[in-house]
Amino acid sequence: MNEYIPRQKLWLELDGHLVMSDYRMRLLALIAESGSLAQAATALGLSYRRAWGKVKELEANLAMPLVQSEVGGAGGGHTALTPEAAALIEAYGRFSVRMDEALEAAFEAEFAALRRPAPVTGP
Amino acid sequence: MNEYIPRQKLWLELDGHLVMSDYRMRLLALIAESGSLAQAATALGLSYRRAWGKVKELEANLAMPLVQSEVGGAGGGHTALTPEAAALIEAYGRFSVRMDEALEAAFEAEFAALRRPAPVTGP
Repeated sequence: MNEYIPRQKLWLELDGHLVMSDYRMRLLALIAESGSLAQAATALGLSYRRAWGKVKELEANLAMPLVQSEVGGAGGGHTALTPEAAALIEAYGRFSVRMDEALEAAFEAEFAALRRPAPVTGP
Repeated sequence: MNEYIPRQKLWLELDGHLVMSDYRMRLLALIAESGSLAQAATALGLSYRRAWGKVKELEANLAMPLVQSEVGGAGGGHTALTPEAAALIEAYGRFSVRMDEALEAAFEAEFAALRRPAPVTGP
C-alpha cells in the first residue's frame, strides 16, 4: 500500500463517564434487531453476563433505562430498547457517519500533497 | 454539567503501523521549538531514552528520518526536524483542527435535539 490511512475513535461522555461508543452502539443495535440480549452477546463474542454488565454500566452512566424486558410468552422473553435508547443510538449512528465523511475530507484536504510515491517496480 | 460531550482520538497508519497521533505530533513540535530532544522529553514527562525510542519507532514505521542532530558547537548539540517531518506535523496539525471543528459540527447537528434538560433548581 504505502499510503497513509487516517483513523479515528469516537465516543460520548456525560459527567466524565463513557456513555456511547461505536462498540456500545453496535451492542444496542443488535439487541434491537434480535430482541435478545443473549443473541446480541453471541454476535459480539461476549458472554451474556458481560453484555448484561455493559448495558447496566451504560444505564448507570446515562442515568436512564436502555432496555426493557418482557418475560415469558410463547417465544420466551423478549428484550427491546427503550425509546430513549433508540433515539440515542440513531443520533450516534448519524454522528458517526458524519465523522467518517469528515475524516476522509480532512485527510484529502491536508494529506493529498504529502501522498507518498508508489514504490518503483521493475519493468 | 449533565451534557453529552463528544470525544475523538485521531491517528495515521502506514502499512498497518501507527505513524502519527496528537501525542507524537506534540513530541515532534516540542523538539522543533526547543531544538532539544531532552527538553521535549522533559516537557512531556518522558525519560530521554523513552522519547528517543518513540522518535526512532516513528522513523522506522515511516521509513524516513524525522530528526537531524548537530553535535557540539558553542551551545552544545542541537536537534532539528527534517523538512519531511516538519511538513508531516504541519499537515497533521491542520488535519486535527479540521477534525475538531467537524466533531463540534456533527455533534451539534445530531445531538441538539437530544440535549438533556438542565436539572431543576429551586427558586
